[in-house]
Amino acid sequence: MANYAKRLWLEEDLGDDYRWSYRVSEVLFSGRSEFQEIDLVDTPTWGKVLLLDGKMQSTEADEQVYHELLVHPPLLHHACPKRVYIMGGGEGATAREVLRHKTVEQVVMVDIDKVVTDFCSKHLERNTQAFADPRLTLINDDARTQLEQAPDGSFDVVIGDLADPLDGGPCYQLYTQEFYRNVVLKKLAPGGIFITQSGPAGFLSCKEVFTAIHSTVRSVFPVVVPYAQHIPSFCDIWGYNMAFSDAAQAPLSPEELDSRIGARLDGVPLHFLDGVTFQGLRHLNKMVRVALQEEKEVYTVDSARFIHGAGVKA
Amino acid sequence: MANYAKRLWLEEDLGDDYRWSYRVSEVLFSGRSEFQEIDLVDTPTWGKVLLLDGKMQSTEADEQVYHELLVHPPLLHHACPKRVYIMGGGEGATAREVLRHKTVEQVVMVDIDKVVTDFCSKHLERNTQAFADPRLTLINDDARTQLEQAPDGSFDVVIGDLADPLDGGPCYQLYTQEFYRNVVLKKLAPGGIFITQSGPAGFLSCKEVFTAIHSTVRSVFPVVVPYAQHIPSFCDIWGYNMAFSDAAQAPLSPEELDSRIGARLDGVPLHFLDGVTFQGLRHLNKMVRVALQEEKEVYTVDSARFIHGAGVKA
Amino acid sequence: MANYAKRLWLEEDLGDDYRWSYRVSEVLFSGRSEFQEIDLVDTPTWGKVLLLDGKMQSTEADEQVYHELLVHPPLLHHACPKRVYIMGGGEGATAREVLRHKTVEQVVMVDIDKVVTDFCSKHLERNTQAFADPRLTLINDDARTQLEQAPDGSFDVVIGDLADPLDGGPCYQLYTQEFYRNVVLKKLAPGGIFITQSGPAGFLSCKEVFTAIHSTVRSVFPVVVPYAQHIPSFCDIWGYNMAFSDAAQAPLSPEELDSRIGARLDGVPLHFLDGVTFQGLRHLNKMVRVALQEEKEVYTVDSARFIHGAGVKA
Amino acid sequence: MANYAKRLWLEEDLGDDYRWSYRVSEVLFSGRSEFQEIDLVDTPTWGKVLLLDGKMQSTEADEQVYHELLVHPPLLHHACPKRVYIMGGGEGATAREVLRHKTVEQVVMVDIDKVVTDFCSKHLERNTQAFADPRLTLINDDARTQLEQAPDGSFDVVIGDLADPLDGGPCYQLYTQEFYRNVVLKKLAPGGIFITQSGPAGFLSCKEVFTAIHSTVRSVFPVVVPYAQHIPSFCDIWGYNMAFSDAAQAPLSPEELDSRIGARLDGVPLHFLDGVTFQGLRHLNKMVRVALQEEKEVYTVDSARFIHGAGVKA
Repeated sequence: MANYAKRLWLEEDLGDDYRWSYRVSEVLFSGRSEFQEIDLVDTPTWGKVLLLDGKMQSTEADEQVYHELLVHPPLLHHACPKRVYIMGGGEGATAREVLRHKTVEQVVMVDIDKVVTDFCSKHLERNTQAFADPRLTLINDDARTQLEQAPDGSFDVVIGDLADPLDGGPCYQLYTQEFYRNVVLKKLAPGGIFITQSGPAGFLSCKEVFTAIHSTVRSVFPVVVPYAQHIPSFCDIWGYNMAFSDAAQAPLSPEELDSRIGARLDGVPLHFLDGVTFQGLRHLNKMVRVALQEEKEVYTVDSARFIHGAGVKA
Repeated sequence: MANYAKRLWLEEDLGDDYRWSYRVSEVLFSGRSEFQEIDLVDTPTWGKVLLLDGKMQSTEADEQVYHELLVHPPLLHHACPKRVYIMGGGEGATAREVLRHKTVEQVVMVDIDKVVTDFCSKHLERNTQAFADPRLTLINDDARTQLEQAPDGSFDVVIGDLADPLDGGPCYQLYTQEFYRNVVLKKLAPGGIFITQSGPAGFLSCKEVFTAIHSTVRSVFPVVVPYAQHIPSFCDIWGYNMAFSDAAQAPLSPEELDSRIGARLDGVPLHFLDGVTFQGLRHLNKMVRVALQEEKEVYTVDSARFIHGAGVKA
Repeated sequence: MANYAKRLWLEEDLGDDYRWSYRVSEVLFSGRSEFQEIDLVDTPTWGKVLLLDGKMQSTEADEQVYHELLVHPPLLHHACPKRVYIMGGGEGATAREVLRHKTVEQVVMVDIDKVVTDFCSKHLERNTQAFADPRLTLINDDARTQLEQAPDGSFDVVIGDLADPLDGGPCYQLYTQEFYRNVVLKKLAPGGIFITQSGPAGFLSCKEVFTAIHSTVRSVFPVVVPYAQHIPSFCDIWGYNMAFSDAAQAPLSPEELDSRIGARLDGVPLHFLDGVTFQGLRHLNKMVRVALQEEKEVYTVDSARFIHGAGVKA
Repeated sequence: MANYAKRLWLEEDLGDDYRWSYRVSEVLFSGRSEFQEIDLVDTPTWGKVLLLDGKMQSTEADEQVYHELLVHPPLLHHACPKRVYIMGGGEGATAREVLRHKTVEQVVMVDIDKVVTDFCSKHLERNTQAFADPRLTLINDDARTQLEQAPDGSFDVVIGDLADPLDGGPCYQLYTQEFYRNVVLKKLAPGGIFITQSGPAGFLSCKEVFTAIHSTVRSVFPVVVPYAQHIPSFCDIWGYNMAFSDAAQAPLSPEELDSRIGARLDGVPLHFLDGVTFQGLRHLNKMVRVALQEEKEVYTVDSARFIHGAGVKA
């Protein structure tokens, strides 16, 4: 194994002139849907890595952090989250984190690719239990169509854990002002919260899509809380935009966040997130704050930009 | 140039099983001292890059952020910094940032490698003016020897911007409890502040050296403020430990920091740092805070660990 | 597949400062024995590639050429080859070529690794039929031990298609003067012929092992015919040494070779080898001929050199 | 140097899915003309390497072999070569080898790029003397235009050592039937010989351009002798086509070649070529001979194919 492992590398372009490579010790499983290639490989650096079309989607080493930050801030800020809608999230980790909340009664997860969800429910052991949870309804369809068909006010929290808009995929529709205004906001119940992963948010990379997603969400929702964290396997800071439908709502204090984590979650403590952590994440640096402030673009159906680059979460 | 540029790559190991590569469009200058190889190359990704022994030391794209965070927090937290001692810092950027403080009267910079300081004063245009500043005394010698010879209480701020301890270099001596207690603390005037770059501080990497440097500094200084920021060209979060010799001192509020930035610096605003930024940086995440708390190791002359890996600031 | 394929690379060191990489489109099968890692991967460049411990052993694109040159020259030069002993050759292609000769009645193939021979008989379609041929006796044991135990004069042709001596393997014993004199020569019947693959034989690489293998064989056999051919997937010229036990024997004329190819082989013509081809291969260039002439080393049990490098045939 | 050298790699694509890389220890000189980028780098694998537009043109390790085979076969086969025309050859090594022939009185070398010829005459020490030889006339112009302007029957030998036709360069004109018939053949004196480097000639690569160049030359000249040799730094077998204008001429015997080498050259013996070597080179293998025979294409001004790939000699 040692010799072999030294020689098989997975290479990922991080830009035109810049790439990284990590050793693959074993290709564990491979599959293919009508939409994409799916692989699970083992690596010395990241542990097991899920690849969609050869691009790193999540790794054993840090997926926990990515998913804690996507799920727990919105659910903890909600008064009592019972019904949650997940757009994408085929890997199952987003659902896994949502289901840790004792208040949650119903999770609807809509991911286009049945081959991916089957693959992950079978091969990603950390998420197997979540896929089997009776509170989860898994639908393999377009996340937008399904959300449009739901009655207004159906959900307390809507989570955007969407496939990479790169390569001409249809996901950019799910990042537009029209979608946020005409669908997401309407499907949220009063006090509802929306969150979307928002691409790279480093001081060098935040203008790629993070700032425009922010200004688009802000053009629809009265309060938007952007925050960001370094995800090593994405090779960058990663951004989130959490939007409150209630104009009176504000970020919780560290103490209140800690108290809710203790009260609402199952017994296992969160690895990464607590009140102080969230203080750090939402105090963005000056360069990113200036970029957010100066961003004039709002994504509309006509104008949506594409993300070019690696590591966008599916 | 285009064709050539496509083919020359600088490859940097980030670990045993993990590396990255970026295109080099031109090798601008090369030199060699008794200590190391020095190169300045141009790259599409990072702009001009300074390499010591082939390892990225600083890039046009993000050196500003690294150096703002090394210099301004300690100088701004000091009541009135007049005399500053820089250990290492041969590139000149640390001195450049220090010299922006109107209170500063004397900067002593001690870097072992005259070839590096000559090279940088000539080829790094951003730092040329700093090298020529009459307040700067540049000494090419061992940073520890020079500091030992200074009278006690000579400096208001001591900055550790040290060469990579990797490869059997003598720098690890400058990260020990003995050095902090017997030299640094004594050479600081009352109210003096010490800061040292402290290696990778991500949730996956903080136990390499960051936590041990922190516990070593904390074993000597009454108050230590750790903080961290993503530096893209280091491919990780980077850590700092700022130590107050006065037990009564505490981190400033965002408002006070902003006010001091306005009052003390030359006219040009800081790009990256302000009060809110520093709020974010010093609220470390739970995983790193737990690691800091659990770290039992204190570096002593006998025990000092080596950093293995890339990107350590010289 | 397309996307995935772009990103998985198999990297092979060709020297300390020199390597190549080729895209892997699919990892078809992987196995592992007590001796080595076995993989069959698909590649756009070479078609299916068999890897032992991550090193290229044979490729769909050019294994035919390597094996034609290992098998047909000695069998065609023999008056009437009936009994053939193959040392190594676990892949099955050497046996496949031997079995094309209508005179052949018995082939004994001794390869240490049962997992490899099972793997290849199952997954290498080109060789499946050879593994099932009733004339083939496959023994998984040490090739030397088995040959020692055979009665003297048992074989008309002995073929060395041996595993890489690199990495401390025991194969170097099978390249020594003692082995050639005490075992190989004795087990050959009168008029018997021995051939061994002999490593890289380019004008820059021939001194690695080719010249010393030649001088070792020549120290035991009265007539030795060295020849060489470029094998693209080995990234070099590859050498063979064919040894006649009968001092009166000489290389055949192109016409006689062509005539024997027509008479003795099954109906399918050889792809690569004919009389003119062999003329070319055995007229080595001046640099290699001088190196052969100047080589003083003879491998003995004590002195055997190791091959360092890639591409040695298993 | 050691550390730095470990990290700078020159990467060369050998195909879409296949590349190699070699360490660069130093970038010695860089230049740029209106046509191309020119670099001389030092490498542990190949010694000094001349790069045009980042592609390997010649290396210290094996340029001698490439140039011996381009120059000496045609000059040795000529009855008494006095006047030689070199198309391309800017590096100077082709002229260097031509000038070793005592019969040679005049060498006209026409290379389009003055920056390259200046660069090479200054930095390639092996060729400095050739550039200064009074028998050499160096003209920086289009090789075809200059040859057209020469009186008919001006040259005994014409050598095509031409720049890579890749990337839309105009060199393909110099590989056409029209050019051979209307220019080259006419400018040769009676008994004249033409040779051209002819691209990769391995059994996997010979159909790229080698076979078509051969059939084009053969459509004009009465006798064409193809031959080929492995050039390691080109990562392939390299092909040549030597054409006799006199229908009665045939390849020399090994003995006659050796005799002429002894009689005509300066004192220093050839490293690589002798009579036996040439025997080997011109007995091509069956796969290549079949491909030559089956090739129907003749390059004309309209149809000329482009070489796609690396390593074509400039």
